[in-house]
Amino acid sequence: MEIFFSADTGGNLVFLGEEESAHCVRVLRHRSGDEITVVDGEGTMMRCRLKDDSPKGATAEILERHPGWGGHPYRLTMAVCPTKNNDRFEWFVEKAVEIGVDVIVPVIGERSERKVFKPERSRKIALSAMKQSLKARLPRIEGPTSVKDFIITSSGDLKLICYCFEGETTRRSIEEVLAEATEGADITIMIGPEGDFSPEEARLAVGNGFIPVHLGPSRLRTETAAVTAATAVYLHHIG
Amino acid sequence: MEIFFSADTGGNLVFLGEEESAHCVRVLRHRSGDEITVVDGEGTMMRCRLKDDSPKGATAEILERHPGWGGHPYRLTMAVCPTKNNDRFEWFVEKAVEIGVDVIVPVIGERSERKVFKPERSRKIALSAMKQSLKARLPRIEGPTSVKDFIITSSGDLKLICYCFEGETTRRSIEEVLAEATEGADITIMIGPEGDFSPEEARLAVGNGFIPVHLGPSRLRTETAAVTAATAVYLHHIG
Repeated sequence: MEIFFSADTGGNLVFLGEEESAHCVRVLRHRSGDEITVVDGEGTMMRCRLKDDSPKGATAEILERHPGWGGHPYRLTMAVCPTKNNDRFEWFVEKAVEIGVDVIVPVIGERSERKVFKPERSRKIALSAMKQSLKARLPRIEGPTSVKDFIITSSGDLKLICYCFEGETTRRSIEEVLAEATEGADITIMIGPEGDFSPEEARLAVGNGFIPVHLGPSRLRTETAAVTAATAVYLHHIG
Repeated sequence: MEIFFSADTGGNLVFLGEEESAHCVRVLRHRSGDEITVVDGEGTMMRCRLKDDSPKGATAEILERHPGWGGHPYRLTMAVCPTKNNDRFEWFVEKAVEIGVDVIVPVIGERSERKVFKPERSRKIALSAMKQSLKARLPRIEGPTSVKDFIITSSGDLKLICYCFEGETTRRSIEEVLAEATEGADITIMIGPEGDFSPEEARLAVGNGFIPVHLGPSRLRTETAAVTAATAVYLHHIG
């Protein structure tokens, strides 16, 4: 099932950008009168009929709106340290979008292997994964921020930090902590680099309301830990 | 932490193959007298002392044996339809090994995009992931088999088949079914291709003791579904 993306609507019309129009008209050969599916990136799927099949800027008439399409009953922010290898971080972005995520924040910590991160490729991947997995809300991929700033400005019902060392506060398993989460919770999870968060970062997080958790006994790469944590939240909600 | 692999032991000696020896002696520059860690692929980690530092065939003396190192308290067989893109299947293999898996069987079904599959690259990836994730048991990657043959010859305490359509038997969520699993269960999970298992394949599976399950509302790629299912089993055991 092919899906187009456009946040550009006016009245009962939706306007496809250049790339989407080219794909719609040149590649997939849609013509005026064809029914197409467009998502607005804000959660609404629109069944449309192509009105103007210009390959540089197509227009479609909205026949039906379906809000909350392909959504999930929680809000999840994943703050993850970018991996040395970009492919691995991008795999995580793709998988997190398929499974269900709202915001991804690349966080740079004391022990991060990568101190610079450009989010553009990850944003392309998120868009692609949203369409491929039939969702209508485009997860936001923020620009890189420091672990410290992220911790200090974080909000939400349930904030978790995953680290590997035995700190001052005992870590509980993510399963145990999620079991206590309320329905529709706003969840934030921090995943550190291969070298782990530093004790100072962990202390700051705990002081700002983050609950220390572990992801079980397996030693997971950063991107694997991130997908595992997102999956734990998803599975917790499937009943 | 670097780990070497060898199944070739005799008495209190372990013999490294050519590749491992070259890596040990030429790349990492170990010399006789150095302590090294070797896993046997069968679950045992051996703390050793290098005795003969020949770069084509090193020998080490076993100082301590640690059985069950990096193991997991269940047995998991994942039967997964190879994806059109090999990278994706290999990503699944790497992640499943990190998380915890015992056997991976590539299964070719009616709707499989890929009818041929060579397991050699996946086996290299499994070996690498075993070492990187500090485990001592090498997951077995079998050669491709048909979905039908896999179903008919399958065994184990708990057998699950994940498919997307509403079949004759109602699907329960994987979480619900795993909650009923006994400790240390021998679990088998089948994951179909993007086009799903056919109704005939599902019927054959149910007739052979497979429980139909779903993985929640998200529409997951084959490799994502496979990792999600393996993660569900893993998380179920972390308490």
